[in-house]
Amino acid sequence: MSIAPILVAGSWQPSQATSSFHAVNPQTMEPLPTLFPVSPWADLEPILAAATTAFDQLRALPDSVRADFLEKYAARIQDAHKKLVEVAKLETGLPAEPRLNSTELPRTVDQLRQAAASVRDQNWALPTIDAARNIRSCYIPLGPVLTIGPNNFPYAYNSIAGGDFASAIAAGCPVIAKGHPAHPKTTEILAEQARLAANEAGLPAGTIQMVYHLTPEEGLKLVADSRIASIGFTGSRATGLALKKVADEHGKPIFLEMGSLNPVILLPGAIEEKAQALLDEVAGSCLLGMGQFCTNPGLLFFLAGQGTDTFIANMIEKYRAAPVGTLLTQGVRDNLHSSVLALQKAGAELLIGGQSGGGTGFSHQHTLLRTTGAKFLANPLGLQREAFGNATLAVVCKDAGELQSVLKQLEGQLVGSIYSHTAGNEDGLYRQLEPILRNQVGRLLNDKMPTGVAVSPAMNHGGPYPATGHPHFTAVGFPASIRRFCMLACYDNVRVGRLPQVLQ
Amino acid sequence: MSIAPILVAGSWQPSQATSSFHAVNPQTMEPLPTLFPVSPWADLEPILAAATTAFDQLRALPDSVRADFLEKYAARIQDAHKKLVEVAKLETGLPAEPRLNSTELPRTVDQLRQAAASVRDQNWALPTIDAARNIRSCYIPLGPVLTIGPNNFPYAYNSIAGGDFASAIAAGCPVIAKGHPAHPKTTEILAEQARLAANEAGLPAGTIQMVYHLTPEEGLKLVADSRIASIGFTGSRATGLALKKVADEHGKPIFLEMGSLNPVILLPGAIEEKAQALLDEVAGSCLLGMGQFCTNPGLLFFLAGQGTDTFIANMIEKYRAAPVGTLLTQGVRDNLHSSVLALQKAGAELLIGGQSGGGTGFSHQHTLLRTTGAKFLANPLGLQREAFGNATLAVVCKDAGELQSVLKQLEGQLVGSIYSHTAGNEDGLYRQLEPILRNQVGRLLNDKMPTGVAVSPAMNHGGPYPATGHPHFTAVGFPASIRRFCMLACYDNVRVGRLPQVLQ
Repeated sequence: MSIAPILVAGSWQPSQATSSFHAVNPQTMEPLPTLFPVSPWADLEPILAAATTAFDQLRALPDSVRADFLEKYAARIQDAHKKLVEVAKLETGLPAEPRLNSTELPRTVDQLRQAAASVRDQNWALPTIDAARNIRSCYIPLGPVLTIGPNNFPYAYNSIAGGDFASAIAAGCPVIAKGHPAHPKTTEILAEQARLAANEAGLPAGTIQMVYHLTPEEGLKLVADSRIASIGFTGSRATGLALKKVADEHGKPIFLEMGSLNPVILLPGAIEEKAQALLDEVAGSCLLGMGQFCTNPGLLFFLAGQGTDTFIANMIEKYRAAPVGTLLTQGVRDNLHSSVLALQKAGAELLIGGQSGGGTGFSHQHTLLRTTGAKFLANPLGLQREAFGNATLAVVCKDAGELQSVLKQLEGQLVGSIYSHTAGNEDGLYRQLEPILRNQVGRLLNDKMPTGVAVSPAMNHGGPYPATGHPHFTAVGFPASIRRFCMLACYDNVRVGRLPQVLQ
Repeated sequence: MSIAPILVAGSWQPSQATSSFHAVNPQTMEPLPTLFPVSPWADLEPILAAATTAFDQLRALPDSVRADFLEKYAARIQDAHKKLVEVAKLETGLPAEPRLNSTELPRTVDQLRQAAASVRDQNWALPTIDAARNIRSCYIPLGPVLTIGPNNFPYAYNSIAGGDFASAIAAGCPVIAKGHPAHPKTTEILAEQARLAANEAGLPAGTIQMVYHLTPEEGLKLVADSRIASIGFTGSRATGLALKKVADEHGKPIFLEMGSLNPVILLPGAIEEKAQALLDEVAGSCLLGMGQFCTNPGLLFFLAGQGTDTFIANMIEKYRAAPVGTLLTQGVRDNLHSSVLALQKAGAELLIGGQSGGGTGFSHQHTLLRTTGAKFLANPLGLQREAFGNATLAVVCKDAGELQSVLKQLEGQLVGSIYSHTAGNEDGLYRQLEPILRNQVGRLLNDKMPTGVAVSPAMNHGGPYPATGHPHFTAVGFPASIRRFCMLACYDNVRVGRLPQVLQ
């Protein structure tokens, strides 16, 4: 059986692969028909050469070419939505409605269009002009960017269609996309639409290239290669840290999103005030999409009391009653199971769930665990193990002082939320907790669950290490996300005709 | 003889040091009287505890307290200028006029005042408000910052008065300053003025603290300590990389300035057009302050020809005629000497100089070396060894193609400059060279030498690795330099009364 070609310098080319892989339908647990290549270094050499050339060519083209491309690509994704939903459903097990067709696909299209709008109004470049001294500065593209997408968003974080891709192209960086092996056919369809849109817009041939898979060794070698200027990665902490180590050694900017527990603090007043609505909200967010979101709330914090005990008892019933869906891959299922076991070993009590199965295909029971603040303080890292998927750990603290001590032990997170009584009688406690939580999370919420990341200029989808690699940057929201793939460039006494347009 | 105290939590405290050091007068090469401590970890524990407390206290205070402090401190430095100039001259050998009294000291005062102005108008926080979605974001301070200053700017880059210090305080970060052992008494005077200004302004006691010296081991332990949120460093590449490795392992933002060769390309048309003026300009910049600037031009690029040969011959005479001054330390002198030898071993021909001595105290002859483009291409890293001080390497390329190949081998630099004929007949060549140089330098110049870094909002005193650790950030220029010590903080659905003032 033939192996699918890869996208090199504007055309589909045979891979030099000697090994290949299938995607697996997570609902049937059976392999899907197409064979995809695991690209060896021989595949990457022409890609790196083409990306280098494309960067020089891109710098000589007007910004409007990139904006045109982003808009044409957005329209093409929209036009291809039926096929994209059909294939992504097969590869990921995610529901066609509303998730794939009405939520993620429109979001992806919107991201590309917002990126195009940023290119057109040039706000991402932050031009600064000191006319008196004839010194000017702005952000300029870094060079070819390697994008590595995760398993859980086949469109919106896809390495050839998602936020990192849109940001890098908007900045003027060629992209070398490394697809996720869980959804290669979805990636192929997107790549083909990107290729056609790039041709239509007149992008240089090496601007958009794609391989499906790499061995870990080749991936690290690619990060180290001098022709790669920067990397955008979303995935596991272990992989992210391995990439970070190599990038750091080469002084190369790398932007990582490596998982997060997204703590939610449910103060007694909020529970007392609206127990039933809060229960729906909390359980709904924890189990949404089988918990397979980077912003899934993995940790809930409570103060001890009758209200909390009742709330947790009701959560158990919610977890029991909610239908179990399908997990993305066998790996997600197995990691989830071992993480739940590890949490129990670290001091958490299993309240419900804990076993694989319960749904169609790769699945795992909705799982709720409970521990005390004292146990958390005795093993803070063990009880912060991420159980990616539909598992939640409730930590019940004996008093506000213990809650503060517990929060101080949190690692860096993408999001954190505090629910409190709306009448303000918990405002004093809020003022004690907020300074602790504020610098541990990129996004602080009030009275709202962490799931759902609006593509807003004010969004921060980022946060302190180890949630990401650098707390200055956001992966979502234009124009800020574009500036990740840029360097600050000063023009001092440069003759007017030689300045970039944005500084003239 | 007693050892000088250190600045801990608002007062001068005895050090627990078991070892100590003297500053050395570089002009007499004799030790200066005061004994200063090499601080052991026991000195650092109370400092770290006080900085942690101060960060919480600072966050509860209005911004105006920090602005008041910066202004009061600026005024105090100005008032203490006589003593500061007298002491810094003894410790560094830098001339009182114009350098210390009329250039660096006013610059330092101006930096503190510009930082204060940024605090008052809050422009550094980049507030972004999405009212429709009730999402807001801005930059907030990271936490306690360790500042480590270099030997060559006793005021303007001093860890307790310079750009990193001003930026961190402006952001709202407490500072733990690690002085440079070459000018401890200058640092002591500055620290005392900072202490007094902090008291007057009402800064928390642990906001500004200072030690004079650390062993390398304790320095690395301090970088790794969880109570240090970020680091600002200016100094050698070897030390910078050692600190970066530890900071990277802990996912901690570190801002490094590690030296640069600041290439200057002198095209034939510019030489033809104004040979004598250019000669004065180039030699003047290369030898300014004995070449002890991070923006000193260490590499000059030429195209082969009679004009170039005459220019270089005239440079030799300039180097011969210019009076030799004093270098900052014995270390600078010895490193310079061994670097000049290493450059010769790597393929450079010595045209003039090359020996220690020639001036008062620690000194080294003005040194000019020459090599070819071909030799540079044969050993690009060996011929990019930084010879910090009054030594310059001229690289003569046989043609424009070779010059382009040579430029592609450059490591990341703070600054690069291109001189060309003003009539525009070299504009075609400029267009070939500019894309190569642009992404290798933080600041691109035309027809101007790299020395001199204006404190302008449009300045970039930064650049690609290994000149710095991250090409996104500048160490000079407000408000951008302040944002280094910040994280992006999003407030999503946060109740209005709980928002920071800048987002309300």
